[in-house]
Amino acid sequence: MDVLFSDITVITMNDEKPVLRGGYVGIDGRSVTYVGQTPPAESAARVINGGRRLLMPGLINSHSHLPMTLLRGYADDYRLREWLFDHIFPAENRLDERCISAGIRLGLAECIRFGVISCTDMYFHLPRIAEAVLETGVKANITNSVLCLDMSRFDFEKERGTIEVREVLQRFKGAGEGRLIVDAGIHGEYTSGPQAWRESVAFAGEHNLRLHIHLSETEAEHTECVKKYGKTPAEVLRESGVFTRKTTAAHCCWLTEGDMDILAASGATAAHCPVSNLKLSSGVAPVMKMRGRGLNVALGTDGACSNNNHDMFEEIKTAALLQKYISGDPAALSAYEAIKMATVNGAAGQGRENETGRIQPGYDADIIMLNLDAPHLFPLYDPCAAVAYAARGSDVCMTMVQGRVLYENGEYKTIDMEKIRYEVEQYVRPRLG
Amino acid sequence: MDVLFSDITVITMNDEKPVLRGGYVGIDGRSVTYVGQTPPAESAARVINGGRRLLMPGLINSHSHLPMTLLRGYADDYRLREWLFDHIFPAENRLDERCISAGIRLGLAECIRFGVISCTDMYFHLPRIAEAVLETGVKANITNSVLCLDMSRFDFEKERGTIEVREVLQRFKGAGEGRLIVDAGIHGEYTSGPQAWRESVAFAGEHNLRLHIHLSETEAEHTECVKKYGKTPAEVLRESGVFTRKTTAAHCCWLTEGDMDILAASGATAAHCPVSNLKLSSGVAPVMKMRGRGLNVALGTDGACSNNNHDMFEEIKTAALLQKYISGDPAALSAYEAIKMATVNGAAGQGRENETGRIQPGYDADIIMLNLDAPHLFPLYDPCAAVAYAARGSDVCMTMVQGRVLYENGEYKTIDMEKIRYEVEQYVRPRLG
Repeated sequence: MDVLFSDITVITMNDEKPVLRGGYVGIDGRSVTYVGQTPPAESAARVINGGRRLLMPGLINSHSHLPMTLLRGYADDYRLREWLFDHIFPAENRLDERCISAGIRLGLAECIRFGVISCTDMYFHLPRIAEAVLETGVKANITNSVLCLDMSRFDFEKERGTIEVREVLQRFKGAGEGRLIVDAGIHGEYTSGPQAWRESVAFAGEHNLRLHIHLSETEAEHTECVKKYGKTPAEVLRESGVFTRKTTAAHCCWLTEGDMDILAASGATAAHCPVSNLKLSSGVAPVMKMRGRGLNVALGTDGACSNNNHDMFEEIKTAALLQKYISGDPAALSAYEAIKMATVNGAAGQGRENETGRIQPGYDADIIMLNLDAPHLFPLYDPCAAVAYAARGSDVCMTMVQGRVLYENGEYKTIDMEKIRYEVEQYVRPRLG
Repeated sequence: MDVLFSDITVITMNDEKPVLRGGYVGIDGRSVTYVGQTPPAESAARVINGGRRLLMPGLINSHSHLPMTLLRGYADDYRLREWLFDHIFPAENRLDERCISAGIRLGLAECIRFGVISCTDMYFHLPRIAEAVLETGVKANITNSVLCLDMSRFDFEKERGTIEVREVLQRFKGAGEGRLIVDAGIHGEYTSGPQAWRESVAFAGEHNLRLHIHLSETEAEHTECVKKYGKTPAEVLRESGVFTRKTTAAHCCWLTEGDMDILAASGATAAHCPVSNLKLSSGVAPVMKMRGRGLNVALGTDGACSNNNHDMFEEIKTAALLQKYISGDPAALSAYEAIKMATVNGAAGQGRENETGRIQPGYDADIIMLNLDAPHLFPLYDPCAAVAYAARGSDVCMTMVQGRVLYENGEYKTIDMEKIRYEVEQYVRPRLG
């Protein structure tokens, strides 16, 4: 056995026995091989004593735009259109691939620091993103999406998203022991049309890819689609076959009950982004209703411009609080259920349900450890309540993916933060003004 | 000069010049004596270099029940009545003054760790609380409130709240160089009656005290009052003279516009508790409306049972996000305005507006420093956006009150965390079962 966590509080996310007190977790190579209430027979090369520590599955960010981390705090407190068209889009246009290489690493550094082991990410310069994912040791489902505001000029093969996804599929096939998964992407209903959707779906089918899309984020987007097509975004997208591919639909604030049924029947995942949706006044996704209709609901941060961090603990808490508020029921979306959205449900959304999201023999050792020394995590009556309502990413003291430690007690094992800082300060900032 | 912060990013909270880049802040004794863009002429005994650090006024928690920290995670995800009557009240009944001594210190440790320099706190065993405030070096406005469900048996002089407030007024008069302020307290409209309010107001007048009260937290509380008296809680309380004393009214989720005018005209402060109000499904206070009518709005965490931490950075962010959401305007409650609620407005609510809440010559050196090394605070385009939308209490690396360092880089200077842990584990937990 390579590593043994000994006498430690464990949130396993196995519904039968979700929490162990004074438990033992053993790791061999990339996998969890032992979970129990008593020590395993086998000895371990490294024993980590679990006093005042908590072990749980690493968190999964189901909707991100990590290179946008470069624009954190660049434009806040603006109205949506002004924010996008006067600030964010012009800034993004100045980001070349060297910027993106720095930005994705900065975003991944924050993920690793805050206990995120996998992201479902959408952004440009996809080959640079793939390189960073492989290099830093995290998992990710990545795509660059098809986006074409003038469909009369649309050519699927010449779309930047298509070209980049093709390139990454060819160059990185099978790299990273399954850590890297390439998705097909459609930016959203309002930024392309049926031809783009049909061709994207065909492409995804040909390469056996999942799909990543923005869906019904704002009321305007939703109602303008109804005006244009006489149908909701989910309805028109379905007509082009979109949900025949397993799809991660980000936001979903304005889904109708019929839309929820379409997504649920197809095995799609709604990536709820509570903080971003509040910050941009988009709304609050009807999580309890979506769950009630059988839809898998996961959690995401969205980009750092509308958040402004990638702390999934904050998404867990905000998701739970908002459902309690909008339902009028403080028992709605319990601590355990909210954590599940950021682990088990996120794994399902990435097609990794048999690989990550739980601490269980046979699963990858994608594990994080929290330091319980700080006063805000004491006393510890209920580990799930502590994680959902009191903890924050900065409580993570170890992040491990496939048995490899990526971060431990202040030290990044695969990331050079000073180099990233230097690159951002010397190269990126002068470009952004 | 005792301390000089050199070449540092400063959020001063002076509206004319709210942010300095590469600024200088000097401290002599308990006071700030220099704030400028260039180094002061005088040399300093200790120079703190500000590279990758941010200085700002310490935060003020305008509504807390710090000893309840003992019950953090004790009962979550219950409906309000079940939560209070089946879990919280019975547990609180088992807390003796030794428990409270441990609980207040645990709560204060978290405050100090997370950059809170002053609280407006309401709880029992007030003398034990006063001792801890004086010992740990923080500021606080404290009260135990009048609470009597059967007003036919009410005797103001025999009320526990009265007795404890009197004792603390006598024993600790003038102690702690103004750090300790005793308030009068009324628990709420629904837990006492006009006689209690009139006598509390007279008592507050006699001793020149401010008042602390819960007001219109839940819809039920508000509407039942209207049924009972034909008036809102703010209206009936006013008839007993309540707002003739400067009052901190916690929650205020259900205030009418008339109520807001009553509070604004009296110079009261609404202590908005966004996280607690969501967690218990109480509602979202109409902060933009209250501010629009001239009411001073500050921020509080409420007790750890309904939060479950005392991280005022989270309250700042949640307050801003919720106002953007309920107003439909992402420009509502800007980062700077949200920070102001936790600093300048909190100071005004405590009667400390000429003493704390800003970094300004003549003000107490109640200052916190944030470490900007972590990836989630980089890049730093806008220090206020970073503080409001990306930072968390754990980014605080120094907390200083009246020029005295209470916490620095992991070390508590006035609190023995191990002793508190021991006391909670050995004495408190066995009592709570």
